Amino acid sequence: MTELAERVIGCCRRLATYSEEAGRTTRTFLSPPMRDVHGTLREWMERIGMRVRVDAAGNLRGLYGADDARRLIIGSHLDTVPDAGAFDGVLGVVMGVALVEALGSGRPGLSIEVIGFSEEEGVRFGVPFIGSRAVAGTLDGELPGRGVADAIRAYGLDPAQLPAARLSPRAVAYFEIHIEQGPVLESLDLPLGIVDAIVGQSRWTVTFTGRANHAGTTPMHLRRDALAAAAEWISFVESYARRADGLVATVGSVKVNPGAGNVVPGVAELSLDVRHASDEVRKVAVRAFETRARMIASERRMACGCEERLDQRAVPMDETLRAKLEAAVREAGCPVHHMTSGAGHDAMILAALVPAAMLFVRSPGGVSHHPDETVLRDDVARALECSLRFIRNV
Amino acid sequence: MTELAERVIGCCRRLATYSEEAGRTTRTFLSPPMRDVHGTLREWMERIGMRVRVDAAGNLRGLYGADDARRLIIGSHLDTVPDAGAFDGVLGVVMGVALVEALGSGRPGLSIEVIGFSEEEGVRFGVPFIGSRAVAGTLDGELPGRGVADAIRAYGLDPAQLPAARLSPRAVAYFEIHIEQGPVLESLDLPLGIVDAIVGQSRWTVTFTGRANHAGTTPMHLRRDALAAAAEWISFVESYARRADGLVATVGSVKVNPGAGNVVPGVAELSLDVRHASDEVRKVAVRAFETRARMIASERRMACGCEERLDQRAVPMDETLRAKLEAAVREAGCPVHHMTSGAGHDAMILAALVPAAMLFVRSPGGVSHHPDETVLRDDVARALECSLRFIRNV
Repeated sequence: MTELAERVIGCCRRLATYSEEAGRTTRTFLSPPMRDVHGTLREWMERIGMRVRVDAAGNLRGLYGADDARRLIIGSHLDTVPDAGAFDGVLGVVMGVALVEALGSGRPGLSIEVIGFSEEEGVRFGVPFIGSRAVAGTLDGELPGRGVADAIRAYGLDPAQLPAARLSPRAVAYFEIHIEQGPVLESLDLPLGIVDAIVGQSRWTVTFTGRANHAGTTPMHLRRDALAAAAEWISFVESYARRADGLVATVGSVKVNPGAGNVVPGVAELSLDVRHASDEVRKVAVRAFETRARMIASERRMACGCEERLDQRAVPMDETLRAKLEAAVREAGCPVHHMTSGAGHDAMILAALVPAAMLFVRSPGGVSHHPDETVLRDDVARALECSLRFIRNV
Repeated sequence: MTELAERVIGCCRRLATYSEEAGRTTRTFLSPPMRDVHGTLREWMERIGMRVRVDAAGNLRGLYGADDARRLIIGSHLDTVPDAGAFDGVLGVVMGVALVEALGSGRPGLSIEVIGFSEEEGVRFGVPFIGSRAVAGTLDGELPGRGVADAIRAYGLDPAQLPAARLSPRAVAYFEIHIEQGPVLESLDLPLGIVDAIVGQSRWTVTFTGRANHAGTTPMHLRRDALAAAAEWISFVESYARRADGLVATVGSVKVNPGAGNVVPGVAELSLDVRHASDEVRKVAVRAFETRARMIASERRMACGCEERLDQRAVPMDETLRAKLEAAVREAGCPVHHMTSGAGHDAMILAALVPAAMLFVRSPGGVSHHPDETVLRDDVARALECSLRFIRNV
């Protein structure tokens, strides 16, 4: 598998040169360099006997095997964030093609459709998952914004054909390989992780409103310092999340008003991002954070606003497929490690239609969304090996 | 004194209408409305027999009594912050004139010079105390920026005459009445405060540098969250300052990078403002804050930068004058309260030349640098009464 892994990595690095910006990789939904990506992958797909089309949402779709056979979908996305690495999304598509090649004559009675989704990151129109939502059929009829239809037409496609982009009723499973984009596998010295669930996510805005005052003339006991309240709360959020297995909670932004060095802060507005594979655990945590914010504000004689921005349910991967993936990993001689995905993936969308499974490949340094994003050749080879065994057993 | 207090307040409110901006009070160094302020005060000064001039720094100076007598200086500033109240600075100048009027034939052997300093807030050129520094003689020869000299010329004055603005060698004391600009007197239900010292001040920038990471894929134990470190430190600064009598410590601004809700903060840059009447107490506190910042950073495997921006010594008021002011307050039947000034005042600059004293007048609501800034008529009357007794005894 080493040679195939090298070809996969080489292909990903080549696709990374197709960019909207010189010197770095930026490739948004149906931007001009996407044509080169489609061209390169189409060539490989056709060479190994796949029938290729680009659907009305700009998804590249290669089918191997009989049209009317039960169908395994292997996919991930081909768009990138600005100044991206070479593997986020792309790796899963390229490995899909490589797996079809490695399977050789395929599996009797099972077709494989490899899909390179046109859009997952949400960069161009601020709306993620355009590609997979078209396949899921949740996009046609209500295109998110006029710009998307215009972009589809500008690429030479016809928005009216979106219904034909829908997933075949013969699809029986969805499989996605993706880089972990986090440090867990590396910290455990493991090449691969079996994804049990994609976490649910809460986003809140929390605002403490005290009173701005002169930093020199206002004694400590007469202050209502919004940032001091915020600090107490941030520490609570962190220590709570540290004690709750699998929970992540992040205060990523703070806006202080007036925000001058010589003025006691009057207002502190904070973001809160909470994720967990269990919606119940996540909701209990969010309630605890909100309760504590209100308690801190009340103790400090200030106002507190807590506003929910997002409440997204967790998406479990299919139990049978997870077991088969675990068996494949074990048979390939790899250590088995189950984990949750802290980020969203196309598998979230597809899981609403067919049983879905995901395999994570270690991200060296935990780095992603950055030009330094990479993968290890041996990890890719192991992922190919495990995936082949998995596909043979689906 | 009630009638005189009412006239003082009326005059301050009238001067507040002389502004660079319609509908709010903004009057920076030698801006056009300063002419109206000078005109109004000159009229009052001359009516009661003062000899008036505007020196080369734009300070309005009225002398009552013999040119060669020992001289008491009463002063404060006539410039304002943007969207100011009517009393910050102005009150002390207007009360100076009112005190000369109330003294009637004056005090044999003592002249009184009332100075309305042209600049204290530092708004127009970012440099505070231009007026009092000209009087102290620390300005001529090194005007802060070309703009200041141009502004002086534009007002019809001659920068070459700055040496003539210097304090008379006959000056024996400086006295400044100023609104407290803080909530202490109000919280104690007291009209007046005797200022023992103007606090020293440290300003620092403290930066925690951890590592930006994906908020979903980075488990809590693998994070190096710069904002979480900052929060821990802000709480330490607050609780330390709460326990140290008279100390104020403020984190007024936070900049987080990248500052996105779904990214673990990589860098948090904080301002620190520390003030105390004792330089020793202040410096011990600053050392404790720095040590703790470094300790937090080290425990969290991140870098910490601590940069000093300002180290300004405390300025004690003259002990003999403080005692005389206390006696005057007591004789006037007012409760005696000693306090420190958490903000800088012209008295800081003058104290380097002559014994200086300051009297604070209660600020209702602790409000200053705001249109709601005000004073109580009875407090002003009491301040006039105490000041008269003080002047008679200097």
